[in-house]
Amino acid sequence: MSDLKQIIPDLRDGERIDDLQRGGFRLIQRPDSFCLGTDSVLLADFASPRPKEKAADLGCGNGALGILLAARRNDIDIDAVEIREESAELARRNVRLNDLENRFRVHTADLRTAPDMLGKGMKSLVICNPPYWEKERSVVNAGSNQIKARFQEEASPQEVCRAAAALLKFGGRFCTVFPAQRAFEMMTAMQSQRLEPKRLRTVHADPGRAPKIVLIEAVKGGGTGLMWMPPLILKNADGSPSDEWKRIYGK
Amino acid sequence: MSDLKQIIPDLRDGERIDDLQRGGFRLIQRPDSFCLGTDSVLLADFASPRPKEKAADLGCGNGALGILLAARRNDIDIDAVEIREESAELARRNVRLNDLENRFRVHTADLRTAPDMLGKGMKSLVICNPPYWEKERSVVNAGSNQIKARFQEEASPQEVCRAAAALLKFGGRFCTVFPAQRAFEMMTAMQSQRLEPKRLRTVHADPGRAPKIVLIEAVKGGGTGLMWMPPLILKNADGSPSDEWKRIYGK
Repeated sequence: MSDLKQIIPDLRDGERIDDLQRGGFRLIQRPDSFCLGTDSVLLADFASPRPKEKAADLGCGNGALGILLAARRNDIDIDAVEIREESAELARRNVRLNDLENRFRVHTADLRTAPDMLGKGMKSLVICNPPYWEKERSVVNAGSNQIKARFQEEASPQEVCRAAAALLKFGGRFCTVFPAQRAFEMMTAMQSQRLEPKRLRTVHADPGRAPKIVLIEAVKGGGTGLMWMPPLILKNADGSPSDEWKRIYGK
Repeated sequence: MSDLKQIIPDLRDGERIDDLQRGGFRLIQRPDSFCLGTDSVLLADFASPRPKEKAADLGCGNGALGILLAARRNDIDIDAVEIREESAELARRNVRLNDLENRFRVHTADLRTAPDMLGKGMKSLVICNPPYWEKERSVVNAGSNQIKARFQEEASPQEVCRAAAALLKFGGRFCTVFPAQRAFEMMTAMQSQRLEPKRLRTVHADPGRAPKIVLIEAVKGGGTGLMWMPPLILKNADGSPSDEWKRIYGK
């Protein structure tokens, strides 16, 4: 740790640093808080930013998702919003660590206030990786940061969709990842805000399993009709990483 | 054909007879009209009738779906509704052919009138295999029976769901198959009639493909929360029939 601290003065006690496997991009994380999960990596791949995209990340945590997007294109601009100052501060250090200050801003704010703060109809892409389902996963081990990070206590799917819809310009995209069993609830919330669900990808631990999570893209003012992608299988039947997993993780 | 007609007097010119691969159950079909499709076989498997189920089939065509259900359990009772007299008459012959007269009735009627005709809140299961997507598939080859069979011209998803909801008792199930790209539209129509989508299975031609159709079960008065089943893959990557396909087709 002390060697690393000399190289990266921004690293603090109890923190670790991870290589994002994307052109040298790195991430400071607190192992006692939410760390980079599969869901962020998959969502960054699914959202696949377009040239000169103006993006917003609602509830950015340590900034991982936005940094993964920034690593994919050097011409995109990101405003990230995080209600917890401790996480927002860590996200800012991650932005500095990756020399992204000129195109990545982190705001300590409630995501519901994001349209007032960032302007309405200005974004082409809004992303959100709500840490909802940790709730079920880690009730016993939840530290206080984890408890605060719980999506449900901060904003409902309806409220997230309302903020996303207000931020987006007509035709702009809202991309999120959500538990499969609540996918219909999320899609209904999207539609109620005129964000039409347009693209969906189910994520499966292996080929024989039901999806645990789904990736959903909605388009502001889009017409009806849902494009399903091939299922995203993480592991082959024999337990080895799938080709798609390797592609996404850059292995 | 003449030999067959001696054995099966109900068979008419231009018709053929198929073995359903289910305990001797057979089906008279008109090759110039809709024939038994994969979707009916998959829906019968998905709906998987329970003991002593009281079922209704909305838009039964030649009766194939109901006969597949009846073949699975000898204690279920079915009312089938079909607006086209020619198809309803064929369905009645199929009922006779399989000795199901005592528990399978075919009514020539608009499915929208089914709750008035059959009573409200009396059914435990409503099934519907709407031939909607043939529309895109066979515009050129469509004979007049096919044109009339087109779901959209007969009833909207909203109208089918309204009829299904009225027929079902509280806790009863509505099972249907629908094009994947319109799955969200169908689920929204279900929910608007208090049929809560509870179970979903995507159907894939092979493991690497997006689903073309989905099987959906909704429960009258059910709570939110969607159970996804493992994807139903029809063929293995090498093109051979999958084990699941063989199980469903009883091969």
